[in-house]
Amino acid sequence: MQKKELLYEGKAKKVYRTTDPQVYIVSYKDDVTARNGLQRGIVVGKGTLSNRLSNRLFQLLEAQGIPTHFVQEWSDRETVVKKVEMIPLEVIVRNVAAGSLSKRLGFPEGTVLEQPVLEFRYKNDQLGDPMVNASHISALHVAAQEELEHMARLSLQANQILREFFASVQVDLIDFKLEFGRTPEGSLLVADEISLDTCRLWDSETHEKLDKDRLVQDLGGAQEAYGNMRRRLGFPQ
Amino acid sequence: MQKKELLYEGKAKKVYRTTDPQVYIVSYKDDVTARNGLQRGIVVGKGTLSNRLSNRLFQLLEAQGIPTHFVQEWSDRETVVKKVEMIPLEVIVRNVAAGSLSKRLGFPEGTVLEQPVLEFRYKNDQLGDPMVNASHISALHVAAQEELEHMARLSLQANQILREFFASVQVDLIDFKLEFGRTPEGSLLVADEISLDTCRLWDSETHEKLDKDRLVQDLGGAQEAYGNMRRRLGFPQ
Repeated sequence: MQKKELLYEGKAKKVYRTTDPQVYIVSYKDDVTARNGLQRGIVVGKGTLSNRLSNRLFQLLEAQGIPTHFVQEWSDRETVVKKVEMIPLEVIVRNVAAGSLSKRLGFPEGTVLEQPVLEFRYKNDQLGDPMVNASHISALHVAAQEELEHMARLSLQANQILREFFASVQVDLIDFKLEFGRTPEGSLLVADEISLDTCRLWDSETHEKLDKDRLVQDLGGAQEAYGNMRRRLGFPQ
Repeated sequence: MQKKELLYEGKAKKVYRTTDPQVYIVSYKDDVTARNGLQRGIVVGKGTLSNRLSNRLFQLLEAQGIPTHFVQEWSDRETVVKKVEMIPLEVIVRNVAAGSLSKRLGFPEGTVLEQPVLEFRYKNDQLGDPMVNASHISALHVAAQEELEHMARLSLQANQILREFFASVQVDLIDFKLEFGRTPEGSLLVADEISLDTCRLWDSETHEKLDKDRLVQDLGGAQEAYGNMRRRLGFPQ
């Protein structure tokens, strides 16, 4: 198999066609962005960290029966993934109140939720990724009701697995986002990435932020957070 | 039974205690407000129209097995209602896209929805009545999951009944809002009001707006819309 032309370049990733029509190669960039691209910068080593962490987590999910788009690591910042039709929804799972949950519903940041809170957002840059419920999703024709329930179930299962993984390096999984793709056969699998860009992670003891939120402070903070997580995970520089 | 002291005064209603501890008297005001109170005025006769229409609709729902807080009309602008514990949620049922559904999700105003769209909003002035889903409602402890399902079911049934009623006067029910209360025995009933303040109503032919949205244009428009609906409903001046 060979890497072919660039198909798509996003804020944090590039996607390449390959000689195999069933797979793509994803390449993780060092770019970091926050506030919908208003804040941006480069954190050297971020791409390799996202690649390694995402792949580790995808393999962990697969091992527990949750299908993902992961095929194999291609280089330190590139991975072969299954070609799927992306469902334009973000599934957010929250264990602790932070971010928009605190702003919108008034939960003080850090409030531990008795049960995980699940939200769907409609991926649409022009509309600002609005929150949607099951009946909006039906009206938008972006997923069937059974797919929605399946995504919710898989996301809550993934939450258990990811929480345990991060707890093993003394990190609390505050919330995270999953995206799903549909295979040509119509089954669902976890796609996109699971990284410091898509998870809120706080040190279990000090509650120090170890994720992309640090960028909102300054680029140095983000660099430090990424370095901290790399050391905890035992990944090479 | 006698009317006693004022308990609460809102934008469109006053609520009085009575000598019967199980009921209140609601008094509908002539005040109209829009944009969360930014626009306001007086439409003479609005209070009596809201009172008569709400009562007609509550009786119609009751006749079809949907419990409401209605007890009896007390005067042309006052009604005796059951005292209930209000659930701080608004249930929105939408048949045609308008208002926030168009703004948030990009449906052009007037798009007929294949299935009614159902939304819950958390009644909280400070937070601006944010949209919430089932898991937010659990986290907020404002209603049990079974109550939520029950409210959804009753609201969709009410939609059928209200649509038919308005169709009989050549009016399309675009969307409406219901609020529910809990009786001392723990059962749910439709409370608050169902009026031109809580329904979007358009002429079936011309699509002329016949509800509170007209106030956003000007006060004369609102006066005209309320008069138009009063004539269609055959209510006295």
